[in-house]
Amino acid sequence: MKAAVTAHSKYTISDIDPRLYGSFIEHLGRAVYTGIYEPDHATADENGMRRDVIDLVKELNVPIVRYPGGNFVSAYNWEDGIGPKEDRPTRLDLAWHTSESNQVGIHEFAEWCVSANTEMMLAVNLGSRGLDEARNFLEYVNHSGGSEWSDKRIANGRKEPWDVKLWCLGNEMDGPWQIGHKTADEYGRLAHETAKAMRAFDSSLELVVCGSSNAHMPTYPEWEATVLDHTYNEVDYISLHMYFENRAKNTANYLARSIELDNYIGTVAGVIDYVKAKKRSSRNVYISFDEWNVWYHSKERDKATLAGANGWPHAPALLEDDYNFEDVLQVGCILNTFINRADVVKIACLAQLINVIAPIMTVPGGPAWRQTIFYPYYFASVYGRGTALKLMVDSPTYKVDDLGDVPYLDVSAVHDADKKTVTFFIVNRHGTETLDLDASLLEFGALRVIDDQVVAHADLNITNTADKPDNVVAKAVTGTSFADGKLSARIAPLSYRMIRLQA
Amino acid sequence: MKAAVTAHSKYTISDIDPRLYGSFIEHLGRAVYTGIYEPDHATADENGMRRDVIDLVKELNVPIVRYPGGNFVSAYNWEDGIGPKEDRPTRLDLAWHTSESNQVGIHEFAEWCVSANTEMMLAVNLGSRGLDEARNFLEYVNHSGGSEWSDKRIANGRKEPWDVKLWCLGNEMDGPWQIGHKTADEYGRLAHETAKAMRAFDSSLELVVCGSSNAHMPTYPEWEATVLDHTYNEVDYISLHMYFENRAKNTANYLARSIELDNYIGTVAGVIDYVKAKKRSSRNVYISFDEWNVWYHSKERDKATLAGANGWPHAPALLEDDYNFEDVLQVGCILNTFINRADVVKIACLAQLINVIAPIMTVPGGPAWRQTIFYPYYFASVYGRGTALKLMVDSPTYKVDDLGDVPYLDVSAVHDADKKTVTFFIVNRHGTETLDLDASLLEFGALRVIDDQVVAHADLNITNTADKPDNVVAKAVTGTSFADGKLSARIAPLSYRMIRLQA
Amino acid sequence: MKAAVTAHSKYTISDIDPRLYGSFIEHLGRAVYTGIYEPDHATADENGMRRDVIDLVKELNVPIVRYPGGNFVSAYNWEDGIGPKEDRPTRLDLAWHTSESNQVGIHEFAEWCVSANTEMMLAVNLGSRGLDEARNFLEYVNHSGGSEWSDKRIANGRKEPWDVKLWCLGNEMDGPWQIGHKTADEYGRLAHETAKAMRAFDSSLELVVCGSSNAHMPTYPEWEATVLDHTYNEVDYISLHMYFENRAKNTANYLARSIELDNYIGTVAGVIDYVKAKKRSSRNVYISFDEWNVWYHSKERDKATLAGANGWPHAPALLEDDYNFEDVLQVGCILNTFINRADVVKIACLAQLINVIAPIMTVPGGPAWRQTIFYPYYFASVYGRGTALKLMVDSPTYKVDDLGDVPYLDVSAVHDADKKTVTFFIVNRHGTETLDLDASLLEFGALRVIDDQVVAHADLNITNTADKPDNVVAKAVTGTSFADGKLSARIAPLSYRMIRLQA
Repeated sequence: MKAAVTAHSKYTISDIDPRLYGSFIEHLGRAVYTGIYEPDHATADENGMRRDVIDLVKELNVPIVRYPGGNFVSAYNWEDGIGPKEDRPTRLDLAWHTSESNQVGIHEFAEWCVSANTEMMLAVNLGSRGLDEARNFLEYVNHSGGSEWSDKRIANGRKEPWDVKLWCLGNEMDGPWQIGHKTADEYGRLAHETAKAMRAFDSSLELVVCGSSNAHMPTYPEWEATVLDHTYNEVDYISLHMYFENRAKNTANYLARSIELDNYIGTVAGVIDYVKAKKRSSRNVYISFDEWNVWYHSKERDKATLAGANGWPHAPALLEDDYNFEDVLQVGCILNTFINRADVVKIACLAQLINVIAPIMTVPGGPAWRQTIFYPYYFASVYGRGTALKLMVDSPTYKVDDLGDVPYLDVSAVHDADKKTVTFFIVNRHGTETLDLDASLLEFGALRVIDDQVVAHADLNITNTADKPDNVVAKAVTGTSFADGKLSARIAPLSYRMIRLQA
Repeated sequence: MKAAVTAHSKYTISDIDPRLYGSFIEHLGRAVYTGIYEPDHATADENGMRRDVIDLVKELNVPIVRYPGGNFVSAYNWEDGIGPKEDRPTRLDLAWHTSESNQVGIHEFAEWCVSANTEMMLAVNLGSRGLDEARNFLEYVNHSGGSEWSDKRIANGRKEPWDVKLWCLGNEMDGPWQIGHKTADEYGRLAHETAKAMRAFDSSLELVVCGSSNAHMPTYPEWEATVLDHTYNEVDYISLHMYFENRAKNTANYLARSIELDNYIGTVAGVIDYVKAKKRSSRNVYISFDEWNVWYHSKERDKATLAGANGWPHAPALLEDDYNFEDVLQVGCILNTFINRADVVKIACLAQLINVIAPIMTVPGGPAWRQTIFYPYYFASVYGRGTALKLMVDSPTYKVDDLGDVPYLDVSAVHDADKKTVTFFIVNRHGTETLDLDASLLEFGALRVIDDQVVAHADLNITNTADKPDNVVAKAVTGTSFADGKLSARIAPLSYRMIRLQA
Repeated sequence: MKAAVTAHSKYTISDIDPRLYGSFIEHLGRAVYTGIYEPDHATADENGMRRDVIDLVKELNVPIVRYPGGNFVSAYNWEDGIGPKEDRPTRLDLAWHTSESNQVGIHEFAEWCVSANTEMMLAVNLGSRGLDEARNFLEYVNHSGGSEWSDKRIANGRKEPWDVKLWCLGNEMDGPWQIGHKTADEYGRLAHETAKAMRAFDSSLELVVCGSSNAHMPTYPEWEATVLDHTYNEVDYISLHMYFENRAKNTANYLARSIELDNYIGTVAGVIDYVKAKKRSSRNVYISFDEWNVWYHSKERDKATLAGANGWPHAPALLEDDYNFEDVLQVGCILNTFINRADVVKIACLAQLINVIAPIMTVPGGPAWRQTIFYPYYFASVYGRGTALKLMVDSPTYKVDDLGDVPYLDVSAVHDADKKTVTFFIVNRHGTETLDLDASLLEFGALRVIDDQVVAHADLNITNTADKPDNVVAKAVTGTSFADGKLSARIAPLSYRMIRLQA
């Protein structure tokens, strides 16, 4: 089976915002406790943070981490997480039916971000709280000193403000499951007034307003239109979330879901344009796709805890999806979609980073290890920085009921002008046939293949485990050639591939 | 004058929820201070609670007591009532223009309930407060321990949670007099989000949403439709209130008001059905008629205090209606209505229990005594448990302008299958004629009259007083017979009657 | 050029509420710090208040001072300003991008008012806060004692309550710039519920609800109609604001703006009548014009600070308009308009009093001095008490595009029946011609001219300064005569004039 791609150095989509490869840590399950934080662990640093986890996060080169939620944030009192640890209250987390010890708060997380070489993307609570607590939190985090809350931060051991620029105005406020759920009008008004107060502190903040929790919400996309109508001139991004599942075990259909993602992004981009025109505004709003991942493997297991049958445990195992090889392909397709929509999607956060629907897993008191989906995320994050290329793709297709023709070839390409590299990220959706791929690379000069990595496995359902963490890994491929301006590669059925060329 | 009743053991209305005979104690007037609580009283227990009052409450077998309000709750900070008594703040109660010393709070009231052999029905403040304080109060009252608020309860001397299941989402929120009054949409949204957060703590809670304060509110019954539209799937009961008055001193009209009550219940039952269908819901919502009583005798006396002319007194005499014999008949008819509507009315609270429009009165430093209305409430509460029977009633009637034909005979009957008893509660509304009552009792087997009590007096305006507490009491009646499946009884004009039969 | 005026002792507009000559001090710029409060100043009293400033304020006979804002109030926590000064927090004021040390709070301001022989007009925060904090503040300020907040006041050194009767329900809530801006419906609801709670404390309070921030707001005058529809029966005044500017340096147009002010007042008076009828109400609502002044000279200077370019300075120079002689004429016309609308405008506040768009300026560590506009405000406040007379005015006019025919003669007259005085306040708007004024004074008896003061200068742009504070002052005029019931006066072009007659 043949497929052809044409790329031209001047035909670009957009520079890629590095934050397209962001992630997310919520006070949920074991993301924080026994995830990033485990003071008794052999690798724990002076802050009680696991160095083995930090090393894996650094390996992924994560640009930003969203924090502290998620649903958690909608009833979170940020002040609970400051001051002496022994004085911090234990709270009942109504979102996940667990106890929160508050041993990790903004100070600990900020320190961890420095260690993990990443930046904070913070969320204020617009569920149980509002404008007033948001301005105090902002002052605590970003003000230099000489005011009530900034002086408390200093008294709590942090002299310099963290100067976090990227703030989420609540989380999934369209979701009826949210503590303090709002209608689009209620939320739009609250988000607008909160945004105004935050900008009155610092007009250079970048603010993220909540869009739809998924494209199947009954309020989608009217939610976006209404919320942006209230907030357009005070926000910079609108947040979208989407999770992928393959309960029906229909691989062809499953791997086509990134087309749905693409449609979702396109629709919301259209809503943004509509409101921009309505407001006669010259400023742009972009998409922050700040929760995305495969999430379905663990849902049955979590039901008892979420229903309260286990009481109020602290940091129980929750949302610990065991990712299989099939999910590598899905994550590859999702990342390709973001790269190909880099003109409107500026921020995206793999949800989440540690233990909770995560590429990195930990054993309490034991090792940290890489799930299967670690690999496509790794390749995109590490090698996907630069300019997204506008590809002309000619691929055979298959039919999917709700999506029409779906190409077997899923591909994106990133040009790094400084390093003179072009990197292709490829998924072959075909179950049995190899794709003979010809990629014409115009106006890039003579290139050579400098790296060619594949993630593939005969068993779609194979997972990595703590004991066997290397069932699915990336492997080098040989034999891919570049000649006469053309890359020729054979893409195995149901495989993920990264091919890098350099001038 | 003749009247006939037919009862059949299989033709039932519903099992009666024992909470149909609940009552209510508000921080208002002398209900709490010098009512239940009077540390210097000769009968005071170790908690400062009057034992004489407790004994009378136990005599009434009160199943639940609603607390702490009423209008009071809409500006109440529940935390004011915890911790060392000497540290508790005195607050100005804007609802009743009094001072609140907070010497009684949730701990003291809970202890009292144990002593009085009753259960708590608690209300959260949705007037001046919202979701966040409600979840904290709930955690304080019901969580076992290991969290901020539950640990404070333990520190304040109560290890075991009280595990209160029945909670009111504010009080009379349709009333413009309410502190923090809401429109139906405002309240519906707030009640819904608060209910969700409370259920996230414990999905087995029973939640009561506010309906109309009376059937003459301009927003009735649209209020019910709107509020239930917002909240239907998160609440279990909708609260109704109604007070009865006879300012015109027209007994015939006054005693017909229970027909108005019946219509009110019927209308709201219809609204519930309507919203249930609209929501395609399979769950039921019932009525909590959690304030009802005669209330008009004392209103003129209270005006000065309520207008602030007396400053901010602590526990002044307020709403101390002196009930007369006529009110016995009214209360009898009301209770009959609840029994006959036991299919939709599951909870009802006589408002209130002590001193404030109450069956039990106290003299500070002196005795506690029974008002006239103590008796019909006593008979219904003590003997009205079981299954409400669907009676076919054939009675002569009289005309009332707004209600049409009103039967002279007002009656309900309760079957206790375990005790093999059938109990009739009867009021003869006729001013001068005795009712010759024939009651056919089908499929109950052979019965005999085991108790026959009447409350009657020649003077409709006679009251009980501290000095003469026995002007109106119940007296045994003889001569009532059961033969050939038929009870034959003579019901004196303007009398209240309870007749019990047993197999 | 000739002009004629007819006055009759029985043809009156209304008694003038003395509060028509109120002013305003906001925690803004140097109004408070180095304005009224400068503990190190040579004239500082035992409270750290400048006596030289107090003397000037007393000279103006200011009846009320609105406090503490203005935009400031919409994120102000009044509790920050009580208790030991060293414990008070420093807050970031988001309205003016400054730091607030809270060294002056309600106690200090109240003491100052006593010293300055004026009364407090207080505002509650309905931006970031609501009903609950408002009722607490009210209790702190006005309750005699024996409750939580009143006892705190006493503990903080003030035994007697201040018993402030006049309260503003927030500030400029129609303005999108306001922290916690509300829509008309949102604000109307919040103001209504807050007003109810405040009146439940003291039904004799006078409450001021926010109208439009100016007549060019897109929501004007629908805002007034909506807000009053929510609040009519709980408020006493609706607040209007207006500032005047002459950026185009077109004196004729500038001095005609008081006609616009008159139209604005007339429209809102009409809205009040409309809502009064709609509510079938018998009570009246009046206008509190609680911010007015010339404001444009300093705006360019303030931009950097307001945009945050100077960080968060404490008490920087802000809104320090240097008033010129032209502004004397404008202020004279504005005050004439209020006097002539004294039937509907009961309260008006010159915004502001010290340093911030103010008649009184201070040099830190140096003198206090009078701006040009001090004089017309002084004459109106000191001599404008009594009854506003309905004048028949016959004056030549000139055309102004948006206003039509504008009379050259701007005049008001106040009759003090006790002192038997009639006082004229006059502005000649003509640039070059003297007005020969004949004023017929019917039924006042024989009068004589007892005072005749002019404020005039050849240079419209001349200002007073700290060094030359007497460039513009009032000067006595001679030659004005009263004979045969007629006052004859020559009013110089572009001059302000006060003429007093006495029987």
